Order: sequence, then structure tokens, then C-alpha cells
Amino acid sequence: MKKEIRIFSPGTVSNVSCGFDVLGFCLDHIGDEMVVRTTTQKGISITKIEGYDLPYETKKNVAGVSALALVNDFQPDFGFEIEIYKRIKPGSGIGSSAASAAGSVFAINELLGKPYNKTQLTQFAMKGEAVASQSEHADNLAPAIFGGFVLVKSLKPLEILNLPTPDELYAVIIHPQIEIKTAEARAILPKEIPMQDAISQWSNLGSLVHALHTSDYELLKRSLYDAVVEPYRSQLIPHFEDVKQAVLDAGALGFGISGSGPSMFAITKGEKSAKMVEIAMRKVYQSSNIQFETYLSKINKEGIKTLS
Amino acid sequence: MKKEIRIFSPGTVSNVSCGFDVLGFCLDHIGDEMVVRTTTQKGISITKIEGYDLPYETKKNVAGVSALALVNDFQPDFGFEIEIYKRIKPGSGIGSSAASAAGSVFAINELLGKPYNKTQLTQFAMKGEAVASQSEHADNLAPAIFGGFVLVKSLKPLEILNLPTPDELYAVIIHPQIEIKTAEARAILPKEIPMQDAISQWSNLGSLVHALHTSDYELLKRSLYDAVVEPYRSQLIPHFEDVKQAVLDAGALGFGISGSGPSMFAITKGEKSAKMVEIAMRKVYQSSNIQFETYLSKINKEGIKTLS
Repeated sequence: MKKEIRIFSPGTVSNVSCGFDVLGFCLDHIGDEMVVRTTTQKGISITKIEGYDLPYETKKNVAGVSALALVNDFQPDFGFEIEIYKRIKPGSGIGSSAASAAGSVFAINELLGKPYNKTQLTQFAMKGEAVASQSEHADNLAPAIFGGFVLVKSLKPLEILNLPTPDELYAVIIHPQIEIKTAEARAILPKEIPMQDAISQWSNLGSLVHALHTSDYELLKRSLYDAVVEPYRSQLIPHFEDVKQAVLDAGALGFGISGSGPSMFAITKGEKSAKMVEIAMRKVYQSSNIQFETYLSKINKEGIKTLS
Repeated sequence: MKKEIRIFSPGTVSNVSCGFDVLGFCLDHIGDEMVVRTTTQKGISITKIEGYDLPYETKKNVAGVSALALVNDFQPDFGFEIEIYKRIKPGSGIGSSAASAAGSVFAINELLGKPYNKTQLTQFAMKGEAVASQSEHADNLAPAIFGGFVLVKSLKPLEILNLPTPDELYAVIIHPQIEIKTAEARAILPKEIPMQDAISQWSNLGSLVHALHTSDYELLKRSLYDAVVEPYRSQLIPHFEDVKQAVLDAGALGFGISGSGPSMFAITKGEKSAKMVEIAMRKVYQSSNIQFETYLSKINKEGIKTLS
């Protein structure tokens, strides 16, 4: 039995325009690394955290809580220690807590000889994600674990649909260094929405799923709209409309808020288009006094990867 | 050039649970026949109507109005006369007016040598449909013209997506002989809906599209829910909940209101299951004093057919 594993746990984009609360996709190259090794002592301990200041106490650490959920179910007669090399900034809107929560259960499952399937891993990871976000959701976790585009069909029972991901899809992320409190991003949303907006949203989501199945990039472009959430949450993000315009002018298939922000994502066909889009978004923010980072990534069909 | 054509124009089911206002599918064997022939005189005349009492005046007849929309665009130097053998009862909720509106333009397009594509035919037919329903919609027309399952992605511009239709899908219809006024069926719907219900609706529609692409009948079953419209409109249909229960107990994949009712539809996997479901729905209504008809049909992938 392997005693130590090093994994890469990627960032993810959830919500994805018309897929509010149910759709997400997985990034590549942008993510955390974690090392997990078995210990003779039972239980889970966090032994190292680099990159960002996060709690070492297992029950307060998202990676620790999800790992506990797994071992409480499996009951191995040994334990695990976890090292976290955090690269995704907490609160950035690209699934930082999900990367931690999913990474630890993925790694432990590998060390145990894969007793659990991906949906079960997502279920354990939701316990960790709940520590960070005060609610159980899976639209960042499932893309990290399954890879590609996923639809979270339902939470109870948990059902994840792995959608096909056309080969040429790229994502470009811009992360303005501002803080949006999740509570505020939630409070700003209406409890009820106009029927007509809802109809347009489900029509777009239906056609987005069709576009992914048929690799129809133009249809994907015509489907990536959000009539419901973006008008509210975009108010919390400086220069949102300017970036959107610049990115669409530069040829992106779609643009929107990643998770509850402040990061924004663009989807493009091909790497060349992604580079143009990255230049266009940088230009808008360079003329502001807000610090920012951009990332360019192929959409990652594999999800979390074993490095060694 | 062919001077006369006889066509079969099928009934259709619109709304389809989670696909309110955007999804529809096409029936087989249940539908109208129409004969259209060229005339030396320009214009459109309705020369025969059998089955139900409908207006002969071209501008008041849905088949006439849609035909006029086509010939006004094409400007042939001759005209057409239309005979309508109406089998679908107007107001039944299975696309009676759509069958008429779509049938005439399909037939004329064939006689003209197919100058128009299916989306253009749907556009012309919408003018006729508007006469019957006081609004332009396409979720019965498009299934009649395209066949199978269709998603009306948008009305302006009109965009129809022809979804894959798994081979073993059958529909069973029950039509209670009561009248539901379209105006009443509309007025009963809320203008705003809870965000959570909307999310569940678009998650279900997304997974229904995925289920059609993957021929996943069990997923189709788990997707055929309507959290938004059915709770309201089902109140207008006697014994709705009893029929639903009986039909699902008998093994249907899904059940709902066809269009705005009063017809209801079930979807099944295979003909044998469809027959069981038909028996179950008949049993419920047989113990009432309401007249009813049932129909059993494979889902028709072809749409309107040329008979001769």
C-alpha cells in the first residue's frame, strides 16, 4: 500500500452564467498542492500549511473536516497527516475551499485503494466546504473531483452529471484583489425572480448542455447569458461591465462572475482567443488602481491529479 | 412541379414538465390531414373543413394565416387551396392549432420545391398560431415541423434546437372533455417565482437534455419534474393528482400537463409500459363522470409527413 501521495487540486468556476447554483467547470494549472501520508496514530492532523494563513485545527480546516467525514465512514485503523501548499487565495471566487476539501478526500481515497466513487468523495467534501461557506453545496467540489463541465442535478440525494467538454475550450480568469463577503453576495439576491427571466435562464441552460454535447461553440456563445443573478452581483464588482464589453469584443464565447466573485471568467474557443481576451481584461483593470491577477487555462477534463 | 399534396400534421405536447414554454415533442398517428393544391388564382382559399367547425375565411383560419405569411414572402404568381381534415379537437392541449398552422406551410413549401428551411416554416406558422392563442409561440409548432424533442431556445431571433430522441420513448395522452380557457390557464400563473424553484427547474431541464443525449431513461425519469407551473395549473384539471399517482405507479418515466391542458401526458420506455400506463389512466377517469379519450403513440422523430 502506498503511504504517501502528492496531488494537485485545481481551482474551479461555479455558477457559469445560466447555470447558477448547478453548473461548474474545472481549471488547469491553477490550484493547490497537497501531500497526504498515513500515520500509525488514528485521525487526521494538518501538519503544514504554506501560502495562506489557515487553521491547523482539524475541525476548523476544510481539508480536515472533509477528511474526517471520510475516515469516520471508512474507519481505518491508522490515520493521515496533511500538508497543504495553498496557491488559490481564499475568497477569490475560484473554489479555494473546494480545492482543499476535495483534495484531502481524493488523496486519502487513493491511499486506501479507491474504496469510494467520485460522487461519494463529493459527499464527504461537502462537509468540509460547509465549514467555509456555511452551507452544503457542490458546484465547485464536483468540477474539481470529476473534471470538465459538471451539472449538480440535485444535492439530496447528491447527483452529479459529468457533461462532455469540447476540446478547444479555454478559460480566462481575472481576480481583482477586493473582498466580497459571501453573506453580502447572498443577501443581494432576490428571493423571487420574474417568470420570464427564469424561462430564459432554463432555456439557455438547456441549450448550453446541448451545445456541450454537440461541440457547437456558436451555440455555447448564444447560451452563456445570466438574466437572473449577474444584474445583482455584478454591482459588487468594480468595472464589471467594462471588462465584460472588452472581453466579448475580444472574441470570448461568454463572460460572467466566477462563483460569487470577485473573480470573473471568460470562456473562449482556443488558446489564441484566450490570450486576446486576457490582454483585453488586463487593459481595463490596468487603468484602475485595483490590484489584480489573471489566469489562462485549458478546461481541465481530468480534475484532481496525482503528482507522485 | 407537383400540383397537389396530402400531408399528415401531428399533435404535439408542449411545456413537458421542467421545460415550461421552451420544450415540446411530437406525437405519431394523432393528427390532422390536409390537402393543398395549386390554383391559378393568387392567394389562399380554404375550400373544405371536416371534423370541427372552424372559420373558412382565410384571415381568421390559422392554416390560412400561416399560409398567407409564406406566400406574402415568396410571392408566387399562383395560389393555393387548402382542405382541412381536422382530427385534433381544438382546445385539447395537444397542439390542434399548431397542427393546422404548421401543416399548411409545410405543404406549400413542398409544392414550391422546398425554398424554406424548418426554422423559416416555423416562423411563418407562428403567424397562424398567434390567431388562435393571441401570442406568438413555437413550442407546439417546432415539434410538429422538426419532429422528436425540440427546445425553443429563443423566439427573437427564432432558434430551434432539435434534441436527440431515444428510440424507445412512447407517449400516452389522456384528454378529459372539459374546457380550460387559455386566458384562465395563463392568469393562474404567478408573475414571479421562488428562486429555489427556478434553480430546481433549470437543473432538471439541463439534466433532461443530458438524458436525451445519453439515452439515459432513468435520468430522464429523475428530470421530469415541474416545480413551477404544475402546482397551479393542475388545479384546473379534475383528478390530476390521482392520474399522476396511478401513472407513475404503473411505471411511467414522467407525467404532466400537455400544453396548458386539459390533456395530460405520460412518457414511457417502450410500448408495453405505455399500454400499462394507458390502462392505469383510463381506470381513474372511468370512475368519474367526465368523458375522456386516451392516445398511445411512439414519439415521432419525423414530424409532419407527406402522405401522397
